[in-house]
Amino acid sequence: MRVSQSTVRRLSNYYRVLDQVAAENRGVISSNELAEHEGITSAQVRKDLSYFGAFGRRGLGYNVERLRAEIRAILGLDRRWRVGVAGSGHLGSALLAYRGFGNQGFDIVAVFDADRSRIGTEAGLLQVRDIDSLSLADRLDMGVIATPVGAAQDVADRFVAAGVRGILNFAPRKLRVPENVTVRAVDMTTMFESLSFALTEQRPLRVPKSTARRTPPEA
Amino acid sequence: MRVSQSTVRRLSNYYRVLDQVAAENRGVISSNELAEHEGITSAQVRKDLSYFGAFGRRGLGYNVERLRAEIRAILGLDRRWRVGVAGSGHLGSALLAYRGFGNQGFDIVAVFDADRSRIGTEAGLLQVRDIDSLSLADRLDMGVIATPVGAAQDVADRFVAAGVRGILNFAPRKLRVPENVTVRAVDMTTMFESLSFALTEQRPLRVPKSTARRTPPEA
Repeated sequence: MRVSQSTVRRLSNYYRVLDQVAAENRGVISSNELAEHEGITSAQVRKDLSYFGAFGRRGLGYNVERLRAEIRAILGLDRRWRVGVAGSGHLGSALLAYRGFGNQGFDIVAVFDADRSRIGTEAGLLQVRDIDSLSLADRLDMGVIATPVGAAQDVADRFVAAGVRGILNFAPRKLRVPENVTVRAVDMTTMFESLSFALTEQRPLRVPKSTARRTPPEA
Repeated sequence: MRVSQSTVRRLSNYYRVLDQVAAENRGVISSNELAEHEGITSAQVRKDLSYFGAFGRRGLGYNVERLRAEIRAILGLDRRWRVGVAGSGHLGSALLAYRGFGNQGFDIVAVFDADRSRIGTEAGLLQVRDIDSLSLADRLDMGVIATPVGAAQDVADRFVAAGVRGILNFAPRKLRVPENVTVRAVDMTTMFESLSFALTEQRPLRVPKSTARRTPPEA
């Protein structure tokens, strides 16, 4: 089954809404309410959920607890994940300080650095380890790359050698990894561009005449 | 024109590829090559680009410089944006240390904090300012919220009062803003969930029998 990253992101957001609703002890939720939270159509919500075999009942809505359990299983949140962070600078420290990950099953169990002056220092509840000590024995599921860009590929290779199957990459560089390893890139510039696009869209769109001619759209 | 955030993200990525290709002094690029970089189909590339009035020529491809200029204009990168960062902790410091933003037209011109012990200290090339001093005189286009979650709404209100039209929110909280202000939330947990989904997908999908029955999908 091929599911787009946008769908997965929406599932994450539905899950967040269901968490809130469950905390309010409510038993059912309509596709309309889920849609409103996300600013999308209720048809999109029903499509996303039916895709995974979850169906609401006409006029009654979705059973909150059941839908929550299903999305939890689909997103792989019905287990705990061992996460290692490479890089103990500002970004690595920010990740270590964020408590939300543990609540969702992501346990940051190790932080690594190559800088001798940082190895052995405390970072949150952990002690920064030498990246050379990273091994299969760490049983990491996921690795986060929060290093300078020049070190990113080397760290990715080390993560892969240590059995990591998923990498979250904050370094603005494309990584080469084996096919069975998943990489998600977090590109801060892309997020700024999403904003500048939105602020620019409010201006009338100017399409340059030179390219608006209708040559066949197959290049 | 309503354009999805996924399309905007792809435009950002095409733009990155065009930057590389232009640096290699190449004049044309095919939709196939743009598609390969992104791991999508060339039909999707042509659809995205034709949407904005850019058409390649059959067998010749797209003119790199022209396409680059068009995407730059669409994304609002043909001007400079004044950005203020609220919060001078690890995350704020990581953002200030990242040099890539300036290259794309995003100038971080001010950093604010409410913590008296931080105000006046140096953060990169800037001096941390009292959040109370934020005003219309700063002429900010965008604001970044890198504060503890409890301060996020207050900071958002201050940004809006100071004329900010776009907010990048790292705090895991939904913000209330006027309709003419755009908010993009950066949710780190969602990124981890996108990974755990991918790693989980490799297992056979178990659809609980109880919910797989085909009741009408309109809830």
